[in-house]
Amino acid sequence: MKNIDEHTITQAVLQRLQHTPDARLKEVLSALVTHLHDFVREVKLTEAEWKAGIDFLTETGHLCSGTRQEFILLSDTLGVSMLTVALNQKKPPGATEATVFGPFHTEDAPKADLGADIARGAPGVPLFVEARVHDLAGRPVPRAEIDVWQADDDGLYDLQRRELGDERRARAVLQADAQGRFRFRSIVPTPYPIPTDGPVGRMLVATGRHPWRPGHVHFMIRAPGHQTLVTHIFKDPDPYLDSDVVFGVRSSLLGRFVEHPAGDTAPDGTRMAVPFATLDQTFVLATAP
Amino acid sequence: MKNIDEHTITQAVLQRLQHTPDARLKEVLSALVTHLHDFVREVKLTEAEWKAGIDFLTETGHLCSGTRQEFILLSDTLGVSMLTVALNQKKPPGATEATVFGPFHTEDAPKADLGADIARGAPGVPLFVEARVHDLAGRPVPRAEIDVWQADDDGLYDLQRRELGDERRARAVLQADAQGRFRFRSIVPTPYPIPTDGPVGRMLVATGRHPWRPGHVHFMIRAPGHQTLVTHIFKDPDPYLDSDVVFGVRSSLLGRFVEHPAGDTAPDGTRMAVPFATLDQTFVLATAP
Repeated sequence: MKNIDEHTITQAVLQRLQHTPDARLKEVLSALVTHLHDFVREVKLTEAEWKAGIDFLTETGHLCSGTRQEFILLSDTLGVSMLTVALNQKKPPGATEATVFGPFHTEDAPKADLGADIARGAPGVPLFVEARVHDLAGRPVPRAEIDVWQADDDGLYDLQRRELGDERRARAVLQADAQGRFRFRSIVPTPYPIPTDGPVGRMLVATGRHPWRPGHVHFMIRAPGHQTLVTHIFKDPDPYLDSDVVFGVRSSLLGRFVEHPAGDTAPDGTRMAVPFATLDQTFVLATAP
Repeated sequence: MKNIDEHTITQAVLQRLQHTPDARLKEVLSALVTHLHDFVREVKLTEAEWKAGIDFLTETGHLCSGTRQEFILLSDTLGVSMLTVALNQKKPPGATEATVFGPFHTEDAPKADLGADIARGAPGVPLFVEARVHDLAGRPVPRAEIDVWQADDDGLYDLQRRELGDERRARAVLQADAQGRFRFRSIVPTPYPIPTDGPVGRMLVATGRHPWRPGHVHFMIRAPGHQTLVTHIFKDPDPYLDSDVVFGVRSSLLGRFVEHPAGDTAPDGTRMAVPFATLDQTFVLATAP
């Protein structure tokens, strides 16, 4: 393989992948190389642009840490995450749709009892969620595990607030009851910009894009015999429902948030001194394949 | 842009790039998104594979430092670097061809006088290089700047030897004389594996590929009025000339290395107590556009 030129090099690389023992890896890598080379040829990438790409990827990698995942942000903002979700998480009619996972989930969220205030001090308008998990036939799914996480009123997840250290706020793991019901207190989600102080933020500025996501609460719901559901419930109305920076909005995921004035009684019986909101939500799980 | 599915998402992302002020950036990013999405759809990338990709890129970024560039290695081993060179560095007939830059160049190479031993202690068989820089008409190009760098006999560049710190070995910047001639002493290049202790190395193992490059000396030659030449001179014979892990070999870049026994006299007049080699090389620069 000497004297490779810009036309023959793709075949040369594909030949070099011929002996990949794992058939799927061979398939994925061969397609990746083919498309990557086609891209470089199509735009006639200059060496300065290639170098800019190397620097962009390097800086993106350097920003990744235990509490920040800039490559997921990049995938999200280029629509690759939502495309992958759309390909893999097709739900049957009637089931709650999936959306992007996002980079702010943690494995160490505190367990909380039903009815608990999972905000645990995170600033925001109080929100009382009454929800239930059903199967496609409308039957309750008992004792599903509910992983909830969201940003606070300043648009920040607990992971983004260094002053909190390992303290976890506005996230919890709950267990639905025998009738598939769960309830918790938290805060009303608000729109927030994704982190813009890194290479992904610069890409958004350079392309004239805003960095905002409409307000939403993340849910991951797991129950034996059912497909795990990773989704959001979005607040409606919201100025960014039609231009979510990560392309994650589905009409079926707009939640029924109801506003209540100060003085009203919350679903848990508390007489509230401040305005608050309630959300009534049903999640429908698809059967595991 | 709600209810985006796996077919409409590409158009949705391209629409979002519509207002990119810089036309070239818009062109490059739009093509990148199109090919990236086509790749994901074509292989029906799973979420586990997407996550493996995020982890691979993250680890690759974390390995990049002032002395190691794992993303360039990735680009090199997937043929993207050589493709970019082939697209951008087409030389007219008669000019010395270009090849990949590689990740081991530094900006702080020491200047050396003509005839100096640039190995400066790097282990290897002594090599005496006599070379000249010509233009396409065969006329000498006076006082070109010659940047030379290479690995030592253990297959390591100085940058890869932590014990050396900032000490530079087997690299230098020389200036050709008024007749375009330059000469230096160094060491015979030997084949070496690219670093395999990172994600690129794991990719090579997983695809059944060897990590070897044939022995070579890097040259970057700059002169006013001429195209800068970035190339290697390869040692011939070498077991890896037909399977260079970075696809960089061109027949025109095989050097005439001549072996000499101990006791012979080197071109600089030294009576050598050990075997050594000589290389006689002419570089032909293309005219600047």
